[in-house]
Amino acid sequence: MGIGVVIDGCPSGLEIDLDLLTKDLQRRRPGQSAIVTQRSETEDYIIQSGIFEGKTTGTPISIFIPNKDQKSKDYSHIVDSYRPSHADYTYAQKYGNRDYRGGGRSSARETAARVAAGALAKMLLKYYGIQIHAYVSQVGSISIDPKQEIDLDTIESNIIRCPQPDTADKMIQLIKEIKKDGDTIGGKISCLIQGCPVGLGEPVFDKLHADLGKAMLSINAVKGYEYGSGFGAIAMKGSEHNDVFIKDAVGKISTKSNHSGGIQGGISNGMDIYFNVAFKPVATLIKDQKSVNTSGEEITISGKGRHDPCVVPRAVPIVEAMTALVIADHLLRNKTARI
Amino acid sequence: MGIGVVIDGCPSGLEIDLDLLTKDLQRRRPGQSAIVTQRSETEDYIIQSGIFEGKTTGTPISIFIPNKDQKSKDYSHIVDSYRPSHADYTYAQKYGNRDYRGGGRSSARETAARVAAGALAKMLLKYYGIQIHAYVSQVGSISIDPKQEIDLDTIESNIIRCPQPDTADKMIQLIKEIKKDGDTIGGKISCLIQGCPVGLGEPVFDKLHADLGKAMLSINAVKGYEYGSGFGAIAMKGSEHNDVFIKDAVGKISTKSNHSGGIQGGISNGMDIYFNVAFKPVATLIKDQKSVNTSGEEITISGKGRHDPCVVPRAVPIVEAMTALVIADHLLRNKTARI
Amino acid sequence: MGIGVVIDGCPSGLEIDLDLLTKDLQRRRPGQSAIVTQRSETEDYIIQSGIFEGKTTGTPISIFIPNKDQKSKDYSHIVDSYRPSHADYTYAQKYGNRDYRGGGRSSARETAARVAAGALAKMLLKYYGIQIHAYVSQVGSISIDPKQEIDLDTIESNIIRCPQPDTADKMIQLIKEIKKDGDTIGGKISCLIQGCPVGLGEPVFDKLHADLGKAMLSINAVKGYEYGSGFGAIAMKGSEHNDVFIKDAVGKISTKSNHSGGIQGGISNGMDIYFNVAFKPVATLIKDQKSVNTSGEEITISGKGRHDPCVVPRAVPIVEAMTALVIADHLLRNKTARI
Amino acid sequence: MGIGVVIDGCPSGLEIDLDLLTKDLQRRRPGQSAIVTQRSETEDYIIQSGIFEGKTTGTPISIFIPNKDQKSKDYSHIVDSYRPSHADYTYAQKYGNRDYRGGGRSSARETAARVAAGALAKMLLKYYGIQIHAYVSQVGSISIDPKQEIDLDTIESNIIRCPQPDTADKMIQLIKEIKKDGDTIGGKISCLIQGCPVGLGEPVFDKLHADLGKAMLSINAVKGYEYGSGFGAIAMKGSEHNDVFIKDAVGKISTKSNHSGGIQGGISNGMDIYFNVAFKPVATLIKDQKSVNTSGEEITISGKGRHDPCVVPRAVPIVEAMTALVIADHLLRNKTARI
Repeated sequence: MGIGVVIDGCPSGLEIDLDLLTKDLQRRRPGQSAIVTQRSETEDYIIQSGIFEGKTTGTPISIFIPNKDQKSKDYSHIVDSYRPSHADYTYAQKYGNRDYRGGGRSSARETAARVAAGALAKMLLKYYGIQIHAYVSQVGSISIDPKQEIDLDTIESNIIRCPQPDTADKMIQLIKEIKKDGDTIGGKISCLIQGCPVGLGEPVFDKLHADLGKAMLSINAVKGYEYGSGFGAIAMKGSEHNDVFIKDAVGKISTKSNHSGGIQGGISNGMDIYFNVAFKPVATLIKDQKSVNTSGEEITISGKGRHDPCVVPRAVPIVEAMTALVIADHLLRNKTARI
Repeated sequence: MGIGVVIDGCPSGLEIDLDLLTKDLQRRRPGQSAIVTQRSETEDYIIQSGIFEGKTTGTPISIFIPNKDQKSKDYSHIVDSYRPSHADYTYAQKYGNRDYRGGGRSSARETAARVAAGALAKMLLKYYGIQIHAYVSQVGSISIDPKQEIDLDTIESNIIRCPQPDTADKMIQLIKEIKKDGDTIGGKISCLIQGCPVGLGEPVFDKLHADLGKAMLSINAVKGYEYGSGFGAIAMKGSEHNDVFIKDAVGKISTKSNHSGGIQGGISNGMDIYFNVAFKPVATLIKDQKSVNTSGEEITISGKGRHDPCVVPRAVPIVEAMTALVIADHLLRNKTARI
Repeated sequence: MGIGVVIDGCPSGLEIDLDLLTKDLQRRRPGQSAIVTQRSETEDYIIQSGIFEGKTTGTPISIFIPNKDQKSKDYSHIVDSYRPSHADYTYAQKYGNRDYRGGGRSSARETAARVAAGALAKMLLKYYGIQIHAYVSQVGSISIDPKQEIDLDTIESNIIRCPQPDTADKMIQLIKEIKKDGDTIGGKISCLIQGCPVGLGEPVFDKLHADLGKAMLSINAVKGYEYGSGFGAIAMKGSEHNDVFIKDAVGKISTKSNHSGGIQGGISNGMDIYFNVAFKPVATLIKDQKSVNTSGEEITISGKGRHDPCVVPRAVPIVEAMTALVIADHLLRNKTARI
Repeated sequence: MGIGVVIDGCPSGLEIDLDLLTKDLQRRRPGQSAIVTQRSETEDYIIQSGIFEGKTTGTPISIFIPNKDQKSKDYSHIVDSYRPSHADYTYAQKYGNRDYRGGGRSSARETAARVAAGALAKMLLKYYGIQIHAYVSQVGSISIDPKQEIDLDTIESNIIRCPQPDTADKMIQLIKEIKKDGDTIGGKISCLIQGCPVGLGEPVFDKLHADLGKAMLSINAVKGYEYGSGFGAIAMKGSEHNDVFIKDAVGKISTKSNHSGGIQGGISNGMDIYFNVAFKPVATLIKDQKSVNTSGEEITISGKGRHDPCVVPRAVPIVEAMTALVIADHLLRNKTARI
C-alpha cells in the first residue's frame, strides 16, 4: 500500500526533472532532522504513467509512493478514541465508519502526494520563468526581524528553513524545548512568487489570491491566510495603502509600493506575489490528554511514539507545491483569455 | 442594463421569503447611511425564473437588478488612466481591452448579485436550522473589546453594524473623520455560523474552512481570512490549543474549548463556526493621486464624486451571503456522503 | 419575461457579427414558413454584457430574448394533465411541483438560447477557418438520394433546408399532408464540419464525437446520433472500413476514405467531420389523445392551436449551434495540449 | 506497470461484492473464448484505497490492475507507422509525441478500468433495486429475431452473449469465418435498465439519455447510439409514436407503449430504459494494409499476432459498466432535487 496522485491536464512535451521531484519529497519527509518526527516513511516513488522518453505525453501522470513499513501496526489505542483536535470524530460522524489505520485521508502523509504533484507544476513554471520560494517566518513568538535582510538562498541552509540564520537558531532552540515537554507549537510560513506574468487570475470568484488562499487552507493544520498587506491593511488609510503606478527606466509599468501583493482585482500585475500562512500547533502530543471514546465515555489518551513538535519546517515544500499547482492552473487557463 | 445572477442547483419546493431578499439588498445598498457612499443605486430586482407559486421549481433562479440611472456617464477621466490599486491595469493587460464604464466586473456593484444569491441560500439554511451573523469587529485601530459581551441582536441597531454600541460609536466617529479628509480606512468583519450540523465539508481539498476562505477572498478588497484561533494559533502550544472532547448532560459530544472554530479535519463538528475577514481601505479617494495613463505617462488623478470611506458596513451582508452559499453547497453535497 | 443565456469562457477581442446572430435566430423562429408552427415568438434580443465597442471583453456574455406576448395565457387545459410523450409527468414527479406555463424548461423555446450562444461560437470558429453546415436529410421515409450531389449552398433556398431541391419538394409535400391530419412526423438532420484542425478532442471520456453526441442528444426530440459510418459500420468488415492513410500532392497526410468521420481515437484528424441526428415526431398533436390527469384518472386531451408538424426545418440551426459550441470548447481546451 | 482507476464520490457504507467485480473483469478479458483475442492479460486487481472492513469509507476508491507480462515487447513495427483507423496519427499530431507501447490511452486495455469502476456502480444500483443487462443484438448482418422472445438469463450461456441461442450460433459461425480471413466485423449491443426510479436525469443539457449517449460514444470503436424508438422514429407519426399514459391495477401511472425508452424530457419515467450501441469492425487486421509512416512515406503494415475479430462479445460488460456509472451519478445527483 501507499499513497498516490493523478495529475491531469499537464501539457505534453514538458521535460521531467526527477531530481527536483526527489528533492522536494526529501524536504517533506519525516526523519530529515532533529526537529521533526522520526517516524519512518519512504519517499521512493514510482511514476506509473504520463512520461515517455523523459517528457510528459499529455496523459494523466500517476505517481505512487509505497509505504515502507508493511507490517500491521497496533491501532487498538485509537480505534475507539476521539483524539482532541483530530478528524476522528468528524469523519466518524460524516461517514458512519472510519478507517483508523494511519489516519486515512486526514493523515499528514496525504501531503506527500501534494508535494509530488507540485514538483511537476514547478517544472512547468520553470519553463515560463516563474520561481516560488516559501520559508518559515515565525515559530511561536519568534518571528523574522523585519529590519533584517532576507536571503532566499539561505532557506535550505538550516533545518527550520528560515532565511535569517540567527532567527533560525532561536526557532530551532524553541522547538527543541517544546519537544522535550512532549508539547507542540504553531508557526507561520511566508511565500514569494517571482517572475509571474501579468494577467493570471479570473475576475469575480476565481481571483488568483482566492485560489491561493483555498489551496493553503486545504493544507492540514492551516488556520489563516493573508496576502499583500493582509490583516495589516485593516489599520491603514487608502492614501498610505494605494500602490502608485510608475514607469521604470525601460518603459515597463510597475508600482512604487506593493501592498497589493502583486495582485489587483484578482489578477496578477507583474510585481512579486507574497502571502503568509498560519499553522496551528500539531494536535498529537506526547502528553496525557482527556477525551471521550466512541461511546461518549471519558477517557485519557496517553501520548506515545514520535511526533512533530512543529509542523512548519516540513510544511515549507507543501506550501510551495500548492502554490505551484494554483499558478500552473491559472497559467493554462489564461491561454484562452484572448483570441 | 443592470446586474444579474443565475443560481443553479437549488432544490425544488423551497419557500421564498421575498422580505429577506429585499432586506439583504437594502443592507448592502449605497446611500443607506451617512458613512457610506451616497452614489445612487436601485435595489429593485426582478426574479426572472425558478419560482412558481412562491416556491422554487428546481429550475435555475435568475434574478436581475436593473440600473437606476440609465443616462450615460462621463468616463473620460478614467478611459486612459490606471487608477492606483484598482483593476484597470490588470484587466487591460489580461484582456487587451477594457470596459471602463462602471468598473465592469471589478465594480463593487457586482456584490449585489452575491447578496441576492446568498439570500436564497439563507432561505435553504433556515429550513435546516442554520443561522449566520456577520458584524464589524474592527475599523482602523478600533476593535471590539474582547472582554465585553457581544449581543448579536444589536448588529443592525447601528449604522456600522458592530454589536457593541459604544465601540460602534467610536468606529462611526473615525469613519466620519476619514471621510472629511477624502481618505479611506480598512476594517475587519467577523462571522458566526450557528446550528451547523456535524459532517459538512470534504476531506483533502474542499475542506469547509478552505471553501469559506476562498469565498471570502473572492470579495472585493479582502486581504486575509482566518478561522477559529487563526493567526493567534501561531504562538500557542498544542496543550493549550487542543479542544478536549466532552459529553454534555444530554449525552451529546462537544468540545470544551473551540479553537478549532467548529471545523476539524475540514469537516464541521457541530460547534459554532467562526472566522474573521480583513478588508483593505477602499482605493477610491477624494484626493489627488499620482499614476500613469495607458501610454505609461505620468498623470495626476483627481478624486471627485462620492466614495465609501470604509467598506465594512456594507460588506457585512456580502460576507453573510458568501457564507450562506458555501454552507448551502456543502449541505447539498453531504446528502450523498452515506448510502 | 423571456429566455436568457450566459456564455462564459469566450476569449476577449472577438469581433461580434450581429447579422449572424440575428439570422440564426430567424432560422429557428416559429412562423417563418408554411410548414412550421405559426405560434408567435419574437426573436429580438438584448446583449446585456460581455461586448464593448463591437468586441468581446472576456466577461460572461448575457443575451436576453424577451417574450413578445406578455398577456397571460390560459393553461387550464394542461394544469392537471399529463400530455403523452411530454415531460409533464417526469418533471412533476422529480420536482414535486411543475411550472406548466409554456412548458418551462422542457419547452422548445429553450432552444432559442442555444442558437444565440451557438452564434457566438460560430464567430469564434469562423476566426479559425471552421465552417458548419447542417441540413435535413430525411423526413418520414423520404431521404436524400445518395447518388445525387449535395450542394450546401442550396440549403437555405427551400423552407425544409434540404440541399437537394427535388427531394426538398417531396419532403415539404409530405409535411403539408401530415399537418392537414393534425399529425406529426419524424426526421433526420445531417451535419458537416469543414476546416477543423487536427487534434481536437480528448482521449478516453471527452472524445470529440462523444461530446458532439451528448450535445445533439440534449436537443429536444432527438432519439439517436451516429458519426462517420455510424450504424452502417455494424455490417462492414475491417478491410472495407479502415481508412488508409495517404500523402497528397502537397505532402499533407490524409485518408483515402473517411468512414472515421474525421475523428480517430476521439481526436479530429483534419478530414471532414460528419454525423446524423434522428428526431422523433413532435408529441403535440391537433388530435384527441387519451391520457391520465395528475390524479391518475383517464382523460381525453384535445389538440388545439398551432403545432410543428415536423421539427427538423427549425432544428437545423439548433444542430449547428450545439455543434459550434462543442467545437469551440475543444478548440479552447486544445490550447493547453502542448507546452 | 498496469492500468488503474480512481472512483470518487461513492457514498460510504456500501457493501463490496468482490465476486461481482471479479466476474465482470473476467467477462471483459482477452482469451476467454475462441472468438476473442488470445492476447494474455491478467485481470487480477488490487483495491488500494476506499474500502475498510468490507465497506466503502467515502474515500476515493483506487483499483489497480497490474500488467501480467512485464517483459518488454517489440514495438519497432509501429514506432514509425500510422496504422489505419487507429489513433496513432491523431495522438502524434495533438501531443507532438506518442507513447507507442501498448497503444497508450487509446488501447482497448483502458476499458478494464471502466469495467472495474462500473462494478462498484452496479453494487450501488443493486442496493437501490436497479438492474442492467446488455447483450449482443447484431453481428455483421445477423441480428436478433424481433419476433422471437429474448431471455436475459441466457446471455451468459453462449460466448457471443446473445440472448437467442440459435441467433448466437449464427453470429459465432460468422465471426469464426471472419477470423479465418484475418478480417474483422462490426456489431451492435443492446442494453436494458430495469427498476430505475422516476426522476433521474436533468433538464436541458444533462438529460439522462444524453449522458448515457456520451458514455457509450466514449467507448472505443462505438459509432452510434440510439435510445427508445431511435432512428426508427424518423419514419413514424406522432399518433403512432406517442406513449399514452395509463393507470394500472395498483394505481401506478405507466405508459401503454414505450417508444420513449423510459425517458421523457430527459428524465426517467419509471418504465424500462433501453438503447442500442453500434460498434465498427476492429481496426487491427491480420492482413497487409497500405499506410504512411511518420515521414509521410507509403508503407505496408503487415498484420500479425492476435486480434479480436469482433469487439462486441467483450464489449457487453463495458456497455453495462458505463451504463451503471451514468445511472449511479444521476441517482446521487437526484438526492438534492427536492428540499
